Amino acid sequence: MSTSDQKRPHTPWRSRLHEIIFESDTPAGKAFDIALIGSILVSVAVVMLESMGRVRAVHGDLLHSIEWFFTILFTLEYLLRLISVRQPLRYATSFLGLVDILAILPTYLSLLIPGTQYLFTIRILRLLRIFRILKLSEYLSEASIITSALRASQRKISVFILTVITLVIIIGSIMYIIEGEEHGFDSIPTSIYWAIVTLTTVGYGDLSPQTPAGKALASLVMIIGYGVIAVPTGIVTVEISQAAQKMRKVSAQSCPSCGSEGHDADAVFCKYCGSHL
Amino acid sequence: MSTSDQKRPHTPWRSRLHEIIFESDTPAGKAFDIALIGSILVSVAVVMLESMGRVRAVHGDLLHSIEWFFTILFTLEYLLRLISVRQPLRYATSFLGLVDILAILPTYLSLLIPGTQYLFTIRILRLLRIFRILKLSEYLSEASIITSALRASQRKISVFILTVITLVIIIGSIMYIIEGEEHGFDSIPTSIYWAIVTLTTVGYGDLSPQTPAGKALASLVMIIGYGVIAVPTGIVTVEISQAAQKMRKVSAQSCPSCGSEGHDADAVFCKYCGSHL
Amino acid sequence: MSTSDQKRPHTPWRSRLHEIIFESDTPAGKAFDIALIGSILVSVAVVMLESMGRVRAVHGDLLHSIEWFFTILFTLEYLLRLISVRQPLRYATSFLGLVDILAILPTYLSLLIPGTQYLFTIRILRLLRIFRILKLSEYLSEASIITSALRASQRKISVFILTVITLVIIIGSIMYIIEGEEHGFDSIPTSIYWAIVTLTTVGYGDLSPQTPAGKALASLVMIIGYGVIAVPTGIVTVEISQAAQKMRKVSAQSCPSCGSEGHDADAVFCKYCGSHL
Amino acid sequence: MSTSDQKRPHTPWRSRLHEIIFESDTPAGKAFDIALIGSILVSVAVVMLESMGRVRAVHGDLLHSIEWFFTILFTLEYLLRLISVRQPLRYATSFLGLVDILAILPTYLSLLIPGTQYLFTIRILRLLRIFRILKLSEYLSEASIITSALRASQRKISVFILTVITLVIIIGSIMYIIEGEEHGFDSIPTSIYWAIVTLTTVGYGDLSPQTPAGKALASLVMIIGYGVIAVPTGIVTVEISQAAQKMRKVSAQSCPSCGSEGHDADAVFCKYCGSHL
Repeated sequence: MSTSDQKRPHTPWRSRLHEIIFESDTPAGKAFDIALIGSILVSVAVVMLESMGRVRAVHGDLLHSIEWFFTILFTLEYLLRLISVRQPLRYATSFLGLVDILAILPTYLSLLIPGTQYLFTIRILRLLRIFRILKLSEYLSEASIITSALRASQRKISVFILTVITLVIIIGSIMYIIEGEEHGFDSIPTSIYWAIVTLTTVGYGDLSPQTPAGKALASLVMIIGYGVIAVPTGIVTVEISQAAQKMRKVSAQSCPSCGSEGHDADAVFCKYCGSHL
Repeated sequence: MSTSDQKRPHTPWRSRLHEIIFESDTPAGKAFDIALIGSILVSVAVVMLESMGRVRAVHGDLLHSIEWFFTILFTLEYLLRLISVRQPLRYATSFLGLVDILAILPTYLSLLIPGTQYLFTIRILRLLRIFRILKLSEYLSEASIITSALRASQRKISVFILTVITLVIIIGSIMYIIEGEEHGFDSIPTSIYWAIVTLTTVGYGDLSPQTPAGKALASLVMIIGYGVIAVPTGIVTVEISQAAQKMRKVSAQSCPSCGSEGHDADAVFCKYCGSHL
Repeated sequence: MSTSDQKRPHTPWRSRLHEIIFESDTPAGKAFDIALIGSILVSVAVVMLESMGRVRAVHGDLLHSIEWFFTILFTLEYLLRLISVRQPLRYATSFLGLVDILAILPTYLSLLIPGTQYLFTIRILRLLRIFRILKLSEYLSEASIITSALRASQRKISVFILTVITLVIIIGSIMYIIEGEEHGFDSIPTSIYWAIVTLTTVGYGDLSPQTPAGKALASLVMIIGYGVIAVPTGIVTVEISQAAQKMRKVSAQSCPSCGSEGHDADAVFCKYCGSHL
Repeated sequence: MSTSDQKRPHTPWRSRLHEIIFESDTPAGKAFDIALIGSILVSVAVVMLESMGRVRAVHGDLLHSIEWFFTILFTLEYLLRLISVRQPLRYATSFLGLVDILAILPTYLSLLIPGTQYLFTIRILRLLRIFRILKLSEYLSEASIITSALRASQRKISVFILTVITLVIIIGSIMYIIEGEEHGFDSIPTSIYWAIVTLTTVGYGDLSPQTPAGKALASLVMIIGYGVIAVPTGIVTVEISQAAQKMRKVSAQSCPSCGSEGHDADAVFCKYCGSHL
């Protein structure tokens, strides 16, 4: 709705097409969305199957045909989208519009350059459209609590990530000096990679300290990591708690005098105009 | 009680049998439950021992006999359960009823098809009955806080898991292109498996990036995982906090004089106006 | 003080000895405690050094002598403790008393049976005495918040651990059937060990799924583990939050009329007797 | 400003220099800071590149020259800092002053002792200056919430880390006795390293239990670690929550009529008595 307000005239058939393709309130729109999600999932599954050597060897041609079928289908869908919106350029340059075009380009490109076939996988990003559909459902408020909590804690998380990056650079450098190239820590970037693997408690074990000094430093890093990993959890928990509280507050009564909302549950008087609630 | 209300007549002996088998308020019911838990634990231990090659080689026949002993015991118990309830079909199709029949079927099935013996392990699910017994104990309220917290956060967790799945598909696909089959990332599903192993900070190390670009992407994924892992913790913490608050408040009363709420469970006088509660 | 009330007469020298050995309020008591912690740390360090093959080969005799020096020192200290308390039996059977005797026994035992020398390590448990000393310091309230939080959440954690145990048994059994002995999952207990390693996000990688079905199940387990790991964190966070709140409340004023404590910070009237605070 | 109050006279050019080098309010100061951050990042990148064997083999001389260029640049900057402050000694002995001198010394030292070149990496610590700059920005309050939360929970975390250290020493010793040198647990310190790797859920897998008893103990340790890892998260979450609450409350005012507090920052009227705030 909001994306179709100025440029093209508002003809009935275009309005109807927009309703089917972009919205999911009508039965037709819902059917279209379900068909679309199904097509994306099948098409992604085909790309996955094609990446498996043994499957490709046997069913390669079939998968290739299905691949082309969905590419043409998505191309048609893309054209319909372009036609149905009143501002085609605005859609084409939006994030979802770019994802839509990127999802079909690799197949055409593979005709010219054979190696590009694995870029098909970018089609997976189309799955993000599921979220757009969910947004219209009852999951909206839940998703918005998480995203608003993450947005609110964005600055704290930036400070935190900057600290972690400084920390892993320093730890990685010291570890490079301690362990050295003979134990696999063959450069500072590799050592930083090890520090990240350790601090985030992933611990692949492809690189692990061999010397007693290295093991002692690694132990220290892990115990520090213990406390460090608590920080983002604490930040996000507090923000989710506050976002959930705000959401609950919204449901409280509005002022009969000035109509303002967002009063505390225990408020007796309106905090904006002083009227009795 | 609630499962026996319509179909069969309420005879004294059936009522008594129901009391012993399904409830644990009476001494006989308690003794039955303890004997049942003991039998389940021993029977599960036997299945475990039978799975160990060296033990099976020496004590295979003995374990097999014990296995059959418990199977017959559980069959008798199942029949008694069917007899004691007033609505046998309703019990037989309930979750615990299905677990009860699935716990004995594999042993009989192994007479026809020898390979099915390892399906014995499904008997472990009978341990869930321990929770039913715990439900009647003081652990009820604690368990209900956790389950109600998880149920309340179900939608938020769905949104979260959907985001994580999209994320691991995209990360897995990019990693497949970067690392390729020569470094073990031999298909997109394998790469997705690696992405899950990394994002959840499990980090087996059976697959780990070898190229500098792969290590850089892995580092990014791990730092993202840092923040991502905080989200479910935050959600569950807030929900448990709210469930615990509700549980405490429910037991409180409102002031008959000023109507204020939120008094402690041990309060005798209203803390706002001083009236007797 | 509290452990010396009935049996033996309260002679001044015994009282003085008790003050030095068991308490840390006087300068002499403090000096004794610091010397004791030092001795424990050095003695534990000696046990650690002795466990290292190369160090034992060179300095084995020296370490053995130091080991005996501390054993005799701790024996003397144990005898002094027995003498200074009024109820020696009560001390000897207390947890710390048992730790004290277990810390010296292995050395004497190694004269008879040479292999027992590594049981020296039990001496490390004496380090728990540091906490007794810390208990007398300002760290008391902080430690009590954590312990009271953990005690309060004990039941919730029991329910949680029981669920996790049931979960890992079921997951382990299914994984044993899927992967089988040829991929290292050679028995159900081993598979359960793998399930614990995976669910707790430790992920050694000594056992990891090889088959596509196994990898799919492992991925599911890891994503479940994502949510599961959030539960104890949520429980402990809420309990710490409540314990911290209670601690703050204790510092609030006591009722001038009935002398009761524990009123909320915003209370105007005593919630027990109704008097104005 | 605060560091230049007693010793040297306050000449205009020195004041101007101080403004540019130490502050970032003026355009010149901002430009200086951005140039400085850029130089630090490039210089750190050069150190990293130099640590990579293949890059050093080809571009060793070029990187060496750039290294010297930045060393001289940072030396000049250090001298300017010394000149611009009124108390040079106080700056030189401050933490950031020591970092500044340590960042340039290794390069000069490498003329005398060739092996010291890898100490260049200490220059990375200069990145901490970014935080000084961020401190002057809007990130201040966010960073201060985290640091004040960590400072407030310092004692609780000390108690916790002491418990963890005792725990890993005891677990490590038992594991050394169980697994022994033939399974890689070749000394108690190595076993303690394993215990830390396991308890923090890092799980490299370079050491993992081989015997059934060892696997059983490891499983127990991991399940304990499940609860243990929740403690620091709980502590930090509660402290961040309290720090965030304080920050919000500080900006609020108390009602001039009834004296109540805890009003929202945007409140105009008291929510308890309706008076104008």
